[in-house]
Amino acid sequence: MNHQETIVALATPSGNGAIAILRLSGSKALDIADRVFRSVKKGKTLQQQSTHTIHLGHIVEAQRVIDEVLVSIFKNPNSYTGEDVVEISCHGSTYIQQEILQLCLRKGCRMATAGEFTLRAFLNGKLDLSQAEAVADLIASDTEASHQMAIQQMRGGFSSEIAKLREELLNFASLIELELDFAEEDVEFADRSQFKELINRIDFVLKRLIDSFAVGNVIKNGIPVAIVGEPNVGKSTLLNALLNEERAIVSEIAGTTRDSIEDEISIGGIGFRFIDTAGIRETEDVVESIGIKRTFEKIEQAQVVMFLLNSAQLVLGNEAVATVTMEIEKIKNKFPQKQLLVILNKIDEISANDLSDLSTNLHAHASVLIPISAKTGQGVEKLTNTLLNLINTGALRNNETIVTNSRHYDALLKAFEEIQNVKQGLETDISGDLLAIDIRQALYHFGEITGEITNDDLLGNIFANFCIGK
Amino acid sequence: MNHQETIVALATPSGNGAIAILRLSGSKALDIADRVFRSVKKGKTLQQQSTHTIHLGHIVEAQRVIDEVLVSIFKNPNSYTGEDVVEISCHGSTYIQQEILQLCLRKGCRMATAGEFTLRAFLNGKLDLSQAEAVADLIASDTEASHQMAIQQMRGGFSSEIAKLREELLNFASLIELELDFAEEDVEFADRSQFKELINRIDFVLKRLIDSFAVGNVIKNGIPVAIVGEPNVGKSTLLNALLNEERAIVSEIAGTTRDSIEDEISIGGIGFRFIDTAGIRETEDVVESIGIKRTFEKIEQAQVVMFLLNSAQLVLGNEAVATVTMEIEKIKNKFPQKQLLVILNKIDEISANDLSDLSTNLHAHASVLIPISAKTGQGVEKLTNTLLNLINTGALRNNETIVTNSRHYDALLKAFEEIQNVKQGLETDISGDLLAIDIRQALYHFGEITGEITNDDLLGNIFANFCIGK
Repeated sequence: MNHQETIVALATPSGNGAIAILRLSGSKALDIADRVFRSVKKGKTLQQQSTHTIHLGHIVEAQRVIDEVLVSIFKNPNSYTGEDVVEISCHGSTYIQQEILQLCLRKGCRMATAGEFTLRAFLNGKLDLSQAEAVADLIASDTEASHQMAIQQMRGGFSSEIAKLREELLNFASLIELELDFAEEDVEFADRSQFKELINRIDFVLKRLIDSFAVGNVIKNGIPVAIVGEPNVGKSTLLNALLNEERAIVSEIAGTTRDSIEDEISIGGIGFRFIDTAGIRETEDVVESIGIKRTFEKIEQAQVVMFLLNSAQLVLGNEAVATVTMEIEKIKNKFPQKQLLVILNKIDEISANDLSDLSTNLHAHASVLIPISAKTGQGVEKLTNTLLNLINTGALRNNETIVTNSRHYDALLKAFEEIQNVKQGLETDISGDLLAIDIRQALYHFGEITGEITNDDLLGNIFANFCIGK
Repeated sequence: MNHQETIVALATPSGNGAIAILRLSGSKALDIADRVFRSVKKGKTLQQQSTHTIHLGHIVEAQRVIDEVLVSIFKNPNSYTGEDVVEISCHGSTYIQQEILQLCLRKGCRMATAGEFTLRAFLNGKLDLSQAEAVADLIASDTEASHQMAIQQMRGGFSSEIAKLREELLNFASLIELELDFAEEDVEFADRSQFKELINRIDFVLKRLIDSFAVGNVIKNGIPVAIVGEPNVGKSTLLNALLNEERAIVSEIAGTTRDSIEDEISIGGIGFRFIDTAGIRETEDVVESIGIKRTFEKIEQAQVVMFLLNSAQLVLGNEAVATVTMEIEKIKNKFPQKQLLVILNKIDEISANDLSDLSTNLHAHASVLIPISAKTGQGVEKLTNTLLNLINTGALRNNETIVTNSRHYDALLKAFEEIQNVKQGLETDISGDLLAIDIRQALYHFGEITGEITNDDLLGNIFANFCIGK
């Protein structure tokens, strides 16, 4: 890819709207803009204007006026990419977007590839690699928690923590390598006790960051919850109740009720991905057995299992309760690691006494038993709180750095391993040259995260996930 | 509707993208923006900054950072609406868009209604009514011709022509009304021969504008073309051939081939709406007869009828030709007003001699006969040119004003009627007071077009067709 060329792309979502933005970046961005733009105010060209100013005029080709537009200019290095950037704000018809785009291409731009604006920002030192990755996460985030993590990472919270440790470690590495040059004189430039203190600190931080990935990953991708329950047990009513309780907007259209229960909804700012299952009622029917097998496969993917029961049906006879307790035990035996919530729905249809008896019966088998009425909303808040307590959002509340990216997680694991080697080396007092190798390895993995260490393949993989125009 | 309030809306298409724009307009736009925006450069508030400048910073609520954004400010009267306008350019996730929108609402904005930004531009004298209407047309336009007409109208081509005539007429009206004040002295302020000359000029322009609506309407809405032909005759191959010939992009995705032939495609910058019919083969079958009835109904909606024939089938026997000629005659008899093109497809499958014989046979019945091969592309260019010649695009080429809006058309017809009355009055030398009434009526209808004469219902109807955010 040639990064000398001036690139252009549509930066706003495709389709008709009031406004669309085309973005140009590169050394010829202002020159090309001057060739297609006629300002309403005569006099200066765009190249002669100050950075961060806006100009009203027309996009023209020969005598043909394509649109009345606003042009914003950003002069290097004070732009998103660090290059000269021009944003053309035109009327949002697909036809006009295409015409202006084609015109820019004819005048010497080339189409930007996916994420190329952000890639250039990285190459020009405007963002480090983990910040650049956070830009894509930010655009993809659809809950408060995933948004908060992405914006923290984009603002450099994560990389500044890594960069600081890396710098201190680099400092020690240099001192130790310096010692090697004076090996015969047996000097010690690097204070070993200070160094041990630093390695312990790094060890501690790395452990915390590595542990945070468990939370970060579920927050980024949503927490998978399998809902086990027969068709008439009130699964979609429950999901609507959870949604209304929160008045959360996951899709842009507020107030939609859902037909499918296979959906992600935001509860308390955390995304939950609900997975519908057919239940596990025992039967001799072959088709049903296939159904049970599929239910188990779906539970396998989930982190939480919500077993939804119709209490109105259970109070009718002991046989029904016996079947249910058997099913609960079966799930507990098969998935001892999964968090199981037993939800007693439709309690508005039974008496308080019946509910009390039923709860006593079931509590012997289910440690978390939540009686609710999805219809009236009773107990739904308790369920919401229970779901939220399942994940440790302490780090989130305390604004601690949370690792959300599996590439970072891998690099941290490798860095951690190397730091253990350094630690062991210090304890066994190994020679400086061997110690230096382990430190360099750890530094390498730190550098992978922020992008000091990189290669074209890695960059290609990262930015391929961006949209064009970012 | 209260136009003192500060309004906010998303101005870019909904959905995820690199960038989204939220637009605020009103006297409190800068104040509200200052309350949610923290500039990276400390010092001045947005209210203290110059118009047409861009500022990097963060949207924050209490301690929570919602996004890193660019804020563009436009101070009244130098903005789209004529009021203070702030554009917030944020990362294009739906979540962020919603969060910033909600924050602005909490800080004192209200949601803009459809077209309210443009309505305010009109109310503040930044655009006249026909220019405002052109903004919606511009966003909706998807062919070169409809785009060109909309942009001409938005730039005031149409209204300046109307406004000029209106002013001259207004001038004469005043003089004639002045004469009435001096009625007893029998003076004549308004030169009757100059006045006659003006009325003739207005008469001429109105006629031209009214006539242009026939072209303007088809360009705006596309020319309806019914394709009559049996299923195996090559209808979709033909449409793909027309599309490829032009390399036109109607949808934003280039290079799509279509499954349905009920579609609009752009040929030579003009939109053609193709309407599929089942053919009119004579039969005793009741179901088929219903099919023929439906074909006739569809032809009724069309302006052009393309009768597509399979020449490879026609050369097999005279009976087939006889059936076809009968069908051609039937269409000609039933729809004498429609333009009929008979297209002989699949000529690559027959010999030159056979084609010559076939053409001679059919020419007796069809004045426009075009032999083509949709498969090889032979003759397709001739068909394209024939279609384009069906509409008089002379006015378009000469950059003449073309009326595209039926509201304007109605007002022009009414104005024309009143001008006829004035003309007749001048010829029969009626009294000044009667003449003045007719002139005032004509002026009223002129004013309806540009919006000097208006009311809330009319404005409501016009702007309801806009998208929110424009």
